[in-house]
Amino acid sequence: MRIKIVNPNTTASFTELCLSAGRAVAAAGTQLLGGQPSSGTPSVECHVDEAVATLGVVEQVRAGEADQVDGYVIACFGDTGIAAAREVAVGPVVGMTEAALYTAALIAPVFSIVTLPMRTRVFAERVLWQAGLERRCAGIRTIDIDVLDCEDEAADVFEPFIAEARRAIAEDHAEAIILGCAGLQPLVARLEAALGVPVIEGVAAAVKLVETLLALQLSTSKLGAWGFPPVKPMTGSAAALALGKSTR
Amino acid sequence: MRIKIVNPNTTASFTELCLSAGRAVAAAGTQLLGGQPSSGTPSVECHVDEAVATLGVVEQVRAGEADQVDGYVIACFGDTGIAAAREVAVGPVVGMTEAALYTAALIAPVFSIVTLPMRTRVFAERVLWQAGLERRCAGIRTIDIDVLDCEDEAADVFEPFIAEARRAIAEDHAEAIILGCAGLQPLVARLEAALGVPVIEGVAAAVKLVETLLALQLSTSKLGAWGFPPVKPMTGSAAALALGKSTR
Amino acid sequence: MRIKIVNPNTTASFTELCLSAGRAVAAAGTQLLGGQPSSGTPSVECHVDEAVATLGVVEQVRAGEADQVDGYVIACFGDTGIAAAREVAVGPVVGMTEAALYTAALIAPVFSIVTLPMRTRVFAERVLWQAGLERRCAGIRTIDIDVLDCEDEAADVFEPFIAEARRAIAEDHAEAIILGCAGLQPLVARLEAALGVPVIEGVAAAVKLVETLLALQLSTSKLGAWGFPPVKPMTGSAAALALGKSTR
Amino acid sequence: MRIKIVNPNTTASFTELCLSAGRAVAAAGTQLLGGQPSSGTPSVECHVDEAVATLGVVEQVRAGEADQVDGYVIACFGDTGIAAAREVAVGPVVGMTEAALYTAALIAPVFSIVTLPMRTRVFAERVLWQAGLERRCAGIRTIDIDVLDCEDEAADVFEPFIAEARRAIAEDHAEAIILGCAGLQPLVARLEAALGVPVIEGVAAAVKLVETLLALQLSTSKLGAWGFPPVKPMTGSAAALALGKSTR
Amino acid sequence: MRIKIVNPNTTASFTELCLSAGRAVAAAGTQLLGGQPSSGTPSVECHVDEAVATLGVVEQVRAGEADQVDGYVIACFGDTGIAAAREVAVGPVVGMTEAALYTAALIAPVFSIVTLPMRTRVFAERVLWQAGLERRCAGIRTIDIDVLDCEDEAADVFEPFIAEARRAIAEDHAEAIILGCAGLQPLVARLEAALGVPVIEGVAAAVKLVETLLALQLSTSKLGAWGFPPVKPMTGSAAALALGKSTR
Amino acid sequence: MRIKIVNPNTTASFTELCLSAGRAVAAAGTQLLGGQPSSGTPSVECHVDEAVATLGVVEQVRAGEADQVDGYVIACFGDTGIAAAREVAVGPVVGMTEAALYTAALIAPVFSIVTLPMRTRVFAERVLWQAGLERRCAGIRTIDIDVLDCEDEAADVFEPFIAEARRAIAEDHAEAIILGCAGLQPLVARLEAALGVPVIEGVAAAVKLVETLLALQLSTSKLGAWGFPPVKPMTGSAAALALGKSTR
Repeated sequence: MRIKIVNPNTTASFTELCLSAGRAVAAAGTQLLGGQPSSGTPSVECHVDEAVATLGVVEQVRAGEADQVDGYVIACFGDTGIAAAREVAVGPVVGMTEAALYTAALIAPVFSIVTLPMRTRVFAERVLWQAGLERRCAGIRTIDIDVLDCEDEAADVFEPFIAEARRAIAEDHAEAIILGCAGLQPLVARLEAALGVPVIEGVAAAVKLVETLLALQLSTSKLGAWGFPPVKPMTGSAAALALGKSTR
Repeated sequence: MRIKIVNPNTTASFTELCLSAGRAVAAAGTQLLGGQPSSGTPSVECHVDEAVATLGVVEQVRAGEADQVDGYVIACFGDTGIAAAREVAVGPVVGMTEAALYTAALIAPVFSIVTLPMRTRVFAERVLWQAGLERRCAGIRTIDIDVLDCEDEAADVFEPFIAEARRAIAEDHAEAIILGCAGLQPLVARLEAALGVPVIEGVAAAVKLVETLLALQLSTSKLGAWGFPPVKPMTGSAAALALGKSTR
Repeated sequence: MRIKIVNPNTTASFTELCLSAGRAVAAAGTQLLGGQPSSGTPSVECHVDEAVATLGVVEQVRAGEADQVDGYVIACFGDTGIAAAREVAVGPVVGMTEAALYTAALIAPVFSIVTLPMRTRVFAERVLWQAGLERRCAGIRTIDIDVLDCEDEAADVFEPFIAEARRAIAEDHAEAIILGCAGLQPLVARLEAALGVPVIEGVAAAVKLVETLLALQLSTSKLGAWGFPPVKPMTGSAAALALGKSTR
Repeated sequence: MRIKIVNPNTTASFTELCLSAGRAVAAAGTQLLGGQPSSGTPSVECHVDEAVATLGVVEQVRAGEADQVDGYVIACFGDTGIAAAREVAVGPVVGMTEAALYTAALIAPVFSIVTLPMRTRVFAERVLWQAGLERRCAGIRTIDIDVLDCEDEAADVFEPFIAEARRAIAEDHAEAIILGCAGLQPLVARLEAALGVPVIEGVAAAVKLVETLLALQLSTSKLGAWGFPPVKPMTGSAAALALGKSTR
Repeated sequence: MRIKIVNPNTTASFTELCLSAGRAVAAAGTQLLGGQPSSGTPSVECHVDEAVATLGVVEQVRAGEADQVDGYVIACFGDTGIAAAREVAVGPVVGMTEAALYTAALIAPVFSIVTLPMRTRVFAERVLWQAGLERRCAGIRTIDIDVLDCEDEAADVFEPFIAEARRAIAEDHAEAIILGCAGLQPLVARLEAALGVPVIEGVAAAVKLVETLLALQLSTSKLGAWGFPPVKPMTGSAAALALGKSTR
Repeated sequence: MRIKIVNPNTTASFTELCLSAGRAVAAAGTQLLGGQPSSGTPSVECHVDEAVATLGVVEQVRAGEADQVDGYVIACFGDTGIAAAREVAVGPVVGMTEAALYTAALIAPVFSIVTLPMRTRVFAERVLWQAGLERRCAGIRTIDIDVLDCEDEAADVFEPFIAEARRAIAEDHAEAIILGCAGLQPLVARLEAALGVPVIEGVAAAVKLVETLLALQLSTSKLGAWGFPPVKPMTGSAAALALGKSTR
């Protein structure tokens, strides 16, 4: 089966990072593809970034449908554009944030999220509400570092990250930690060793959940809120998305 | 003061309808402007429509900033793109949905929303969560009619609308009714007469709330989640938005 | 239009303070009246005070109806007696607390309340529940000073107030601050300058919201919980209120 | 020990009805007293009634303190004035509504409230929130009959009451029924026989809960929100209440 | 009337401790019995302990039914096996945890729980959810001491307990403290004296609540979730429980 | 990897049914084992059944640990004994109910549960609370049929089941249906064809989620509530469980 990891930002190296995380856990029969918007924003850190990136996600899912993709992963903390992606795709779509939340809920009674930068706290809150896990989350802690600074300087992120994670465990009673940024994947093993509790990275989790849904022959219910978008005469760059029922 | 009503869809006649609703209630010193995206979707009925329309909202707010607009109304049920608009604007931004909710909460202990089409129920739920008024809302009832059918055939909407509103009052104990679509404005007076309870239309309410914030010299807190978007090298159509700190 | 600011306590200087806050923001066509109970309690700091003050609020609204008042503001943190006032009045009634909450919600994703004295925390919690904004409120912080000490010694309140407000921003992630006492109005400008986030004072906000409701031709739904009180043979001082359907 | 049943309305026959309900269950060593306000409202059916009745409750608790009363029951659905009563009394105070709720919660996973008249639904909702039992309550159903009509014509209340209770069981999955009015006490046995589920009457339950608190040597925490009211120079009829720390 | 205190663990000295707490408050006509499982676990500190102890609770309630017991108290923080006990018994069953919660709610607007050992925090959370009092609980604080260490070395528990209770009052605004372990009963008087707020011990409270239900002639609703267990062919040690409708 | 499906009841044919559902979706490298308690209850329909079955679950997980099992599925609606199982096992444990809920949440904005018999509604409510998905669940509907009647007479269950599922879609706005009993697995395909929305069966979903956790190298956090049970001197049949840290 073909699963596409859609990176909502335009930074190709992030897409590679996510593919690498996915390949480490994908089943033998899974073919992993990756893609990022042809244009847009290099990182998703505010609501305007989300607005721009969401159209890119729709573009990439449309392209995936043409490529006979069976299911999708949205690889950005906040699950940018996931409802639109679900409308457009025939197959299932799983966000890295909701995947991390549900995975964490299966292995810990309460968990915390450590994310960055500080203003994205509201993205985590939104997904917690959508996923329904507010009560299971002991808290959202943030680090004052920009997303793009994570990639090549992961070492500089490690110390502030582990400091917040330790506070989450000691003060908030968290029993597992969710990594709140796709760019932090390389830190998982070191964090887990240092913290002594499970550390959950959402992209890998989402790849496995898409495999799960495909094995169960389940996909997005098309009855209501996530049905195919009604065909209507869009104009401008939106017209190029050729929206409406998938051609698959 | 200058208040701009931003219609997220491209249908200019809807913008006129909203301006007309606003003019009926605006203060003497208020100058009302209107605008709709230069390209996009003719109506907002699904998440893909919202994705497309949000960029149009950002475009129109950017244009408004250049026009020295003091505050904005988002004139679409669901408050399409309001967080992005708040990031971009210097002045306050109020959505027609949240305006209707807060207005209703001041005059009735519980109220219901009657909206259309059916798949937009999730938009109402999202704003209820964001606005915090889930408990005050007795229910969301939907009519199986498309948004664009509302405009010129309001008569055909009246009967199904009032039937649902009457059920909301009798079965759900609603004591006021919120009109869940900007296109239904012409029905307010007839509905109120027929139902005997207040009927709240959000665009007019939002215009008054923007006036309220301006009189109080209050605007969006720029400390965190709604701060100006960080300047970054966007590409493609997003680049044209020239995002970042307002030039005002 | 005539808007009456009802001060639930008997301290006339508080009424003047509230009128002054209202006049600074009222529209050109608004005539502001003020009133406090003819007898009762000089400040509202406990539930017995609220019980006493509520009858005074009803008395003042009854008087307002005789004076052809179009709408009312309840000028005490906790919105003392607001449901009874809504039953008695023909026109809309807005409390300073709910006005502050809804105003704050339009300009900040989360806000905090700083109020006094400590035992009134439960009043703030009650209005948060009634208004539905528990989730949007990052916390209620209290100062250990009595209400009547606020008036002439505002300087002594400033330092403890700003200390709590800074904690609300740093520790609770508040992005705006609500002033939890009508007596603190003179501090708004200094607080806002010192804190760098919006500071919301509820009396002024409530005056504008009453104007908003009047412009929208909306008033309290009389269908159910806030309908006119049934006429019944009251005795004692209650009889003097001449309750029942308004004579307006 | 001396327990006083405070009837918030001025109808002495209701006080007798409540005393009778209390006597049927009181322990051997319990001396039951009753009292209703010297002036006020003959029934409590709206917020203005509650405002008037609350002062009467304070008056009666003040009188009880002079009479060396050990604990109090507030005998009106809605627990009129209970927070003020708790401030004034040295001993414990239990409301008939909260007593019914907690008792129901000990014997049924979910229960329903059947109350009257229709506009008092908000009183039940307020106590549910204060008591914390919203989730355990399957619903509030109301009968369109006035309180004062219950007393001598209980037969006419029986049929509409049992019809709503049966709907609560069949449609809302209630497994016990709470009687939402002190005036309905004479119906308990017939209702229980007809419905086949427990029917809970709050006045009797509250008498037993006051006995429980007295046996446990527990009374209202005076640390914060329910501490003795601060002494201040009240005027008018409030002055006669001679508020402040109990003389006991 | 006969009330049986069921201690879910096998430590007979704990049963005596609970009986002693019960006797101090029981009414003159109450005959108190005690019992602990014939085999099982000496303390209940984890979910496996709860699983083992629940069967012991069922065994002891079955024995109580044969002994014509009128009502039961479950004497373990967490109310081990209470739903199963309610199914089996004809008379009412009250847990020490829910008893403490409802008692606390009658005397303090907010309270805190101090319990031990740390991993039992989830038991307190579960009962808070079942009882509906999450919002009234200011927090659960835990002490890092094992249950069996409480019995003979209460002195060593006192200092850490009072330290947490003081933090609950100062930082969480608790106005009463719930003792989160049956083994802590001997500390109540000293704690109350030292803290200056009510300290609630659940076993005594539960004995009084069973008396309350018996006086009100109320018992578990048998309509649904707590009805008698269906008779079915159990095997192994379960068969010895001879489950099904009580023989009383 | 070795995954064991633990059937909490003693009916071996149910274990086979579950294994069959698991085998249809398991990955190539997954070896599925099954097991039911050596003694206990033939079905789990009440809290006493749950108490009996939980010990059986612990027994089967202990046996699994000796058999080098990597992860476990709890195959009973209500996830009988799952917290105890998590304490005992080294590897991850997933319940069929939580698996169904999280799977449903990935493919539908709202879903409903259809379960049986009626008194098990509380089990579904408990897992919804534990899993956090109350808000995403449009409702729990029940059928008045016993569990053991499902197995060989699935045809008789089909009609009442589909009638309730259709009501869930039409009246509660459900967009997917969760099958609330392991015994209903053979109906999935027919139900999905007839309803036109996804139908989720939890045992298969749980098998895939255990595979997911194993691939992600994640297991139960042992820091707190689900840590290994403390070793203590149990007596009676509990002693045979040889509890304490796994020997794996």
